[in-house]
Amino acid sequence: MTGQVRVHNFSISLDGFGAGEGQTQEAPFGHAGGSLLNWFFGTRMGAAIHGLEPAALGVDDAFASAWGDGIGAEIMGRNKFGPQRGPWEDESWRGWWGEETPFKTPVFVLTHHPRPSIEMGDGTVFHFLDATPAEALAQAREAADGLDVRIGGGVATVREFLAADLIDHMHLVEVPIVLGRGERLWDGLEGVQERFTVESVASPMSGVVHRSFSRLPR
Amino acid sequence: MTGQVRVHNFSISLDGFGAGEGQTQEAPFGHAGGSLLNWFFGTRMGAAIHGLEPAALGVDDAFASAWGDGIGAEIMGRNKFGPQRGPWEDESWRGWWGEETPFKTPVFVLTHHPRPSIEMGDGTVFHFLDATPAEALAQAREAADGLDVRIGGGVATVREFLAADLIDHMHLVEVPIVLGRGERLWDGLEGVQERFTVESVASPMSGVVHRSFSRLPR
Repeated sequence: MTGQVRVHNFSISLDGFGAGEGQTQEAPFGHAGGSLLNWFFGTRMGAAIHGLEPAALGVDDAFASAWGDGIGAEIMGRNKFGPQRGPWEDESWRGWWGEETPFKTPVFVLTHHPRPSIEMGDGTVFHFLDATPAEALAQAREAADGLDVRIGGGVATVREFLAADLIDHMHLVEVPIVLGRGERLWDGLEGVQERFTVESVASPMSGVVHRSFSRLPR
Repeated sequence: MTGQVRVHNFSISLDGFGAGEGQTQEAPFGHAGGSLLNWFFGTRMGAAIHGLEPAALGVDDAFASAWGDGIGAEIMGRNKFGPQRGPWEDESWRGWWGEETPFKTPVFVLTHHPRPSIEMGDGTVFHFLDATPAEALAQAREAADGLDVRIGGGVATVREFLAADLIDHMHLVEVPIVLGRGERLWDGLEGVQERFTVESVASPMSGVVHRSFSRLPR
């Protein structure tokens, strides 16, 4: 049986932006700052990243925790891996996460500028691919060995996999803020909901809404 | 005490559109058709419009019912009143609603082409104003005689009243569809959430999310 293709913990604003404008090394979400992730920092998984105490084991935490189970590989866009653009000028960059990453699986980084794979000490191996979504997915599936493949973002990567109808499950988090500018998730995806059932639940703690998109039988 | 300024039952898509593209007399919401209002047609208020049986007296119905209580006047944009654009060529048009309207109060229609007021037989009087949001609100408040004023839409009208910081309560309904094109509610409103607290609740019946924006103390 082929594994599923899943998106988790993907936050967007009321106006549909998954990242703000002006992304840099210091501001991975641009002018959005941490506003899209405040809900996440109250969960065990998010709090651990910043050495905080988790707020509560409620619905936010339940969704955040579903991120890792059954995942055998991740695919991410290059901007999620690092702030550099164009040809790699600094191959010493090993990702935002330091030597201990959350992944512990093969991770396929989509880029027009492939470079040698990076084996971290924690089970994570970053591979760099110049490939279409379908091609990258074929490689990730092989690496996942029957487990599921996570599409890790950023915005353009999730949008491209949706457009190619390669997503089976998508967990979106709608944050009640109006960003005004940045990267829109939904551009070019008119009618995409017709391929999914959608379950929605609001979080009384954080004020976000969790939307679970499940692909209808093909 | 001055009445509040309220928006009710205002539906938008996941990508922030409050109406589709191509509005006509036959299709007031353009290519969106009835997709933004399906949740509403399951409520007592919505079902009555089409002679249907309401689906259930759940959270959708509760929100829909709050539309009328304590309202003394409405302000609407011209497109909500009718499909004509530019100078009035047909003054026999008396609104989409027929002789029995849901309003039963004075209704102020914003237009650059004023025309004589229309007194319906049911307590509704349509007045036509070429005025800024603040000017229109001053007139509506006087007519409401201490009761609240409803901002009835469409999209541009709600957006302009938000931009002018004239809204005290806003009930938005987020429908899990991607419209792709049409009129966006949030354009130009970056950061608007900072003026409000936001309460969110998902409807298990319809799949929409009700968001209640309440203006923070000024």
